[in-house]
Amino acid sequence: MEHVLSGLRVVEVSAFIAAPLGGMTLAQLGADVIRIDPIGGNIDYRRWPRAPNGDSLYWACLNRSKRSVALALDTPAGREIAQALITAPGKDAGILLTNLPTSGWMDYMTLSAKRADLIMLRLTGNYDGSGAVDYTVNCASGFPIATGLDEVPVNHVLPAWDIAAGLYLSTGLLAAERARVRSGSGQEVTLSLSDVMLASVGNLGYLADVQVNNNVRPPMGNDLYGALGRDFKTADGRRVMIVAISNRQWHAIGKATGLTNVLASVGPRMNVDLNSETGRFHARREIFNILEAWCAARSLTEIAAVFDGSGVLWGPYQDFGQLVRDDPRCSLANPMMGAVVQSTVDGVLTPGSPLGFGKASRRQPTAAPALGQHTDAVLSEILGLSDSAIGKLHDAGTIAGA
Amino acid sequence: MEHVLSGLRVVEVSAFIAAPLGGMTLAQLGADVIRIDPIGGNIDYRRWPRAPNGDSLYWACLNRSKRSVALALDTPAGREIAQALITAPGKDAGILLTNLPTSGWMDYMTLSAKRADLIMLRLTGNYDGSGAVDYTVNCASGFPIATGLDEVPVNHVLPAWDIAAGLYLSTGLLAAERARVRSGSGQEVTLSLSDVMLASVGNLGYLADVQVNNNVRPPMGNDLYGALGRDFKTADGRRVMIVAISNRQWHAIGKATGLTNVLASVGPRMNVDLNSETGRFHARREIFNILEAWCAARSLTEIAAVFDGSGVLWGPYQDFGQLVRDDPRCSLANPMMGAVVQSTVDGVLTPGSPLGFGKASRRQPTAAPALGQHTDAVLSEILGLSDSAIGKLHDAGTIAGA
Repeated sequence: MEHVLSGLRVVEVSAFIAAPLGGMTLAQLGADVIRIDPIGGNIDYRRWPRAPNGDSLYWACLNRSKRSVALALDTPAGREIAQALITAPGKDAGILLTNLPTSGWMDYMTLSAKRADLIMLRLTGNYDGSGAVDYTVNCASGFPIATGLDEVPVNHVLPAWDIAAGLYLSTGLLAAERARVRSGSGQEVTLSLSDVMLASVGNLGYLADVQVNNNVRPPMGNDLYGALGRDFKTADGRRVMIVAISNRQWHAIGKATGLTNVLASVGPRMNVDLNSETGRFHARREIFNILEAWCAARSLTEIAAVFDGSGVLWGPYQDFGQLVRDDPRCSLANPMMGAVVQSTVDGVLTPGSPLGFGKASRRQPTAAPALGQHTDAVLSEILGLSDSAIGKLHDAGTIAGA
Repeated sequence: MEHVLSGLRVVEVSAFIAAPLGGMTLAQLGADVIRIDPIGGNIDYRRWPRAPNGDSLYWACLNRSKRSVALALDTPAGREIAQALITAPGKDAGILLTNLPTSGWMDYMTLSAKRADLIMLRLTGNYDGSGAVDYTVNCASGFPIATGLDEVPVNHVLPAWDIAAGLYLSTGLLAAERARVRSGSGQEVTLSLSDVMLASVGNLGYLADVQVNNNVRPPMGNDLYGALGRDFKTADGRRVMIVAISNRQWHAIGKATGLTNVLASVGPRMNVDLNSETGRFHARREIFNILEAWCAARSLTEIAAVFDGSGVLWGPYQDFGQLVRDDPRCSLANPMMGAVVQSTVDGVLTPGSPLGFGKASRRQPTAAPALGQHTDAVLSEILGLSDSAIGKLHDAGTIAGA
């Protein structure tokens, strides 16, 4: 089966979230992504959450659809094989994706001497090359102080900067490869995690808000900023998010709940135009009081029955368990989802790429490779090594299989 | 100046965050991204935050480096021009990016009848086409319930799903264009916001954790999960994030603070190996107590003097104002940042693309276009309309300039 990126080959030397996600995003679209690790695994090989058998679910879930090669990267012989894989010929090859320190054997100068049109994507913590991780970038972003209700900063648990960085890497890699097809030239492409954060804060207008308005957006709990929305408690102790951004969504709430007139009366009382986002935002406390009472009198099931198909923009709060068990989107009915064997457990629901390409059926998610699973195959196929040469490298401890 | 995506042309019919960010990501790399809006602006044209003159900073910051065309999209004549722009010839053109309802004049069938190799990226709320936004996807993700300290869900303020969706769109667009160059075929590419959420929750191992371990990761405040890190209060009322993921980072904390022996004594006392992430995670309360006292006795400036250059992974918490004023990364010293005129204010620090391409100087950030600023130029250049034809379209109210 041809997939959209079939033929493209990327070598990844990575750890943690961002760079592995960048590689997996391309692998899930059909690229041949070869992750090279030191024998025994890199620093992320045992990260939580883990399965009872010790497998890192984190590692497995960020390395699906890749091939795995294990090399003694602390030896000249192991590094030489890594260099050979990175710089092997082929117009759709010669691409390295990494977030690891690259001075020495893996720097752009050294590698591009072996393949002049090399494309190298390099993720660092800060733009000057100094270290930073999602957590130390996040605290600087302003978002933890704007999250929650009071002065105590609340870190979001989602490693959002890592995820965005991974997807900038996949975008940047395809952009550089497109340019290479046209110009014949490769290049080094750099990205830093704190630049991803700064760009995102800027893209949402918060940097400009400070500079143009001297305004620092305050924390306001779960309220939407500049629009209408919040969480509401149900009679059975669940919570739902209700949002109205468009006027259509706003009117749908009144119609579905039967509260059209009660809600409309807030406008004159508060002297705002409820047919505007700003008006609804300013009158939100009054509106929330009305919806709070309505939700508190109904169970989640009752609310769902009223809202589903009504045009109301809403959803239940779920923990990870409820997401897996109760959400119909997290099921094989969703074409993105597949079932894989994970850490000896059969039928584990697993996402593939969220991108669907009309011309091809979805690439079904696959289990992650075992560490070193493809070492022999890759060395034979890409470097043309014979079985006996591969055997000698095993004996010397330069390479390892699964 | 040639930029990495120079020559690529994308038409965007969009609103809000995800699709505009996808387009801007490509525009910042040199693609000609033409955003088409209804005359007067789309539903996102006045969103908060706004400048004193009424400009939406949100809109401006998500539409930089694009060209803007304003058309009467509620009329057949306006839609016909939009179709002509989307399906205009050119091997690097014929690409539509949208998150708006596409039934009718903008659906793939209709448009691909006008240009067979059309590439169309279409973002929806859910995979079945039903509506969802960042907020109603987020509540379902499990993250608000895992965020903060107790049972009350805490929404993160960062629209992380929108940002990820935008970057999946830029990745998917380049992937589909790469495939078109090779096959000659265009296609419809679909993405849903809730699939982006599900894929991300799955990629981080949380779906597998539920299914393999029957474990639902609990909220634990600002503590890292499975590693060592948390926020600490300083003597002057600020907070800092301190993290140790690698052993090197862990030992750096002891060395910098002079607490090596005190910290090491926690290991035997708690019967854990502090040279492992898991050991440090299990002993975190004891470790935190020691670091809490150390931080509480020092100001942020004193802590920075000790930690900077020490190998400790740390950072101060900042609000958006402190990020702009105090963070050296948010300055013109950072090659990503530039200064633009924004809403009559001069010298507003603004990010360009976080991706740096070695072969080209950075594309400096530019102010967003005024709505309709490029209507006449685009209609002349791409559709070959004469000045008099353009004048007639203005007179008929079919098009509008800035």
